[in-house]
Amino acid sequence: MSRYWSDVVHRLTPYVPGEQPVATHPVKLNANENPYPPSPRVVEAIRRELGEAGESLRRYPDPTALKLRETVAAHHGIRAEQIFVGNGSDEVLALTFQALLKHDKPLLFPDITYSFYPTYAQLFEVEYKTIPLDDSFAIHIGDYATPNGGVLLPNPNAPTGRPLPLAEIERLVARNTDSVVVIDEAYVDFGAESAIALLDRYPNLLVIQTVSKARSLAGMRVGFAFGHPALIDALNRVKDSFNSYPLDRLAQVAATASYEDDAWFRDHCAKVIASRERLAAGLTALGFEVVPSAANLLFARHEGYDAATLVLRLREREIFVRHFKAPRIDQHLRISVGTDAECEILLAALRDIFSAYIG
Amino acid sequence: MSRYWSDVVHRLTPYVPGEQPVATHPVKLNANENPYPPSPRVVEAIRRELGEAGESLRRYPDPTALKLRETVAAHHGIRAEQIFVGNGSDEVLALTFQALLKHDKPLLFPDITYSFYPTYAQLFEVEYKTIPLDDSFAIHIGDYATPNGGVLLPNPNAPTGRPLPLAEIERLVARNTDSVVVIDEAYVDFGAESAIALLDRYPNLLVIQTVSKARSLAGMRVGFAFGHPALIDALNRVKDSFNSYPLDRLAQVAATASYEDDAWFRDHCAKVIASRERLAAGLTALGFEVVPSAANLLFARHEGYDAATLVLRLREREIFVRHFKAPRIDQHLRISVGTDAECEILLAALRDIFSAYIG
Repeated sequence: MSRYWSDVVHRLTPYVPGEQPVATHPVKLNANENPYPPSPRVVEAIRRELGEAGESLRRYPDPTALKLRETVAAHHGIRAEQIFVGNGSDEVLALTFQALLKHDKPLLFPDITYSFYPTYAQLFEVEYKTIPLDDSFAIHIGDYATPNGGVLLPNPNAPTGRPLPLAEIERLVARNTDSVVVIDEAYVDFGAESAIALLDRYPNLLVIQTVSKARSLAGMRVGFAFGHPALIDALNRVKDSFNSYPLDRLAQVAATASYEDDAWFRDHCAKVIASRERLAAGLTALGFEVVPSAANLLFARHEGYDAATLVLRLREREIFVRHFKAPRIDQHLRISVGTDAECEILLAALRDIFSAYIG
Repeated sequence: MSRYWSDVVHRLTPYVPGEQPVATHPVKLNANENPYPPSPRVVEAIRRELGEAGESLRRYPDPTALKLRETVAAHHGIRAEQIFVGNGSDEVLALTFQALLKHDKPLLFPDITYSFYPTYAQLFEVEYKTIPLDDSFAIHIGDYATPNGGVLLPNPNAPTGRPLPLAEIERLVARNTDSVVVIDEAYVDFGAESAIALLDRYPNLLVIQTVSKARSLAGMRVGFAFGHPALIDALNRVKDSFNSYPLDRLAQVAATASYEDDAWFRDHCAKVIASRERLAAGLTALGFEVVPSAANLLFARHEGYDAATLVLRLREREIFVRHFKAPRIDQHLRISVGTDAECEILLAALRDIFSAYIG
């Protein structure tokens, strides 16, 4: 606390990202990172931009990331002016709160969801109302048919991984015409349906994606918003009043190259999905209740063991999973899908922990 | 305009960054970029982080940039907790407006200065008052002895390059104890004195720097704030409520490596300073009035030639300089210091343009 702080700072509860453990060989299943390195084309593209002497690094990057937007537009069959690029989908979300979600009526989002949303709302002084998930952590679109200044839903939802059918999302977007509906698709590539397909019909739809999960580029900080050019314009106006160049040169070429390697993308999404299904089966066999997931994570609880204790026992073995001390979910673990080998290490450790409980 | 926009978006006048020309071999003296590639250690560090397969890119970067802060702290003889790291000094400035400069009394900054400041103030709804420079574009510290919610001064000032002595800055900081004094030192390494030397004595001082100019890393987006831990804490609270990871892995290692090569840094600053003095002499010989500069830019006017016309004539020759259509400075050119060869091309072109006027 300090008298030099602006008022808003006193009221903030900053977001806490997943721990970056310092262990030598951690099994890191706590931040929904991809277990595989990115496409080799990404590495080549960075090396090419770097050249012998890093000559281009002395120059500012393209503030509009045009080449990247054109490449992503071609990938999705849309136009570059329907795309906004930011420093990870977290920055894109933050700018969306500021540019599109601050109105007299409250923003609506689920009570159990990405825990950064209430933090953005605090920072930008956006009034919000949370809508409870049902007991199986499902979202019911009908619950959002109430006056609002915006609706924000992840699909699949975080931290549950539970997806919504596209028809349900369209039902929401079609009738919520007075404010923007934001679909946060950080995890969409692992089995859910993207609302990008609806873009041309709904000027009130904004879809947010990232290269952090399915494209193995969490370390490079690139995210997108897709929407009607009027929505993208609002985001650009705020971004150009905040920071003209949020993406450095290497991040731009890395993300571009990733979208140029569709075979790698499809292959590695399939691998993660297959590992998820094996891990879900393994957890179920151990007595866990596992939420149906279309993401690269599983949200699971075990009636016989306290979640916080399990986290500690796993941590002693340098296995990191995430746990939220929040109402309704404090007995759940959020487990990122690793390689099959990592998932096996986790399952073996759980078996071991459980047998120690019994013994 | 769209009914979906938040109110603030309608009121914004976004900042316009220096043009990124598409010419094949432009002489680009419009964005104060360094004419030399960065230290070879920067390129090595990026290659090392990248490795064979870019394995680390799948992982989130360190949200606190600890290694980078420790390296920069050692360089400046301060502590890591006195350092905040952001995505270029533009992001650091934006977060500073939000975290430390929004109060009931107005923020003070010069009428002629970095043109992003009023834009930040609009975005975060910070009331401000501009204080006129004198006719020689000098800042008089006495003019800032008025009730305020903060004082923001670049040293050297932009776009003039004119420096303030450290004793003057200390005089301001010592008596302006009720609000934060921010010294924006984007250009300090080219001949001005850094206020970092004052940090331990003044809890109300925040110093902002960047790797974009003197370290040839405009393309990598890294900036810093230096100050009392309570000020740094405010910046971190806002940053962690906005975007946990604004610096990607390659940007962090690039900036760290740059601070590990002090010989390169001193050598290249000296080169740019020597070129600036030669360019200033050349412009003066051509009849320009040149503002005394301690930056990698010169701010100059010629009584005989209209500035906007000169910009166009230079542009036809693929030489790019910056011009501001703003009161008091619309007859000035802002010319970044290039290599001696680039400065010679500029001077030759000006001679040529002038002789055509006469002929």
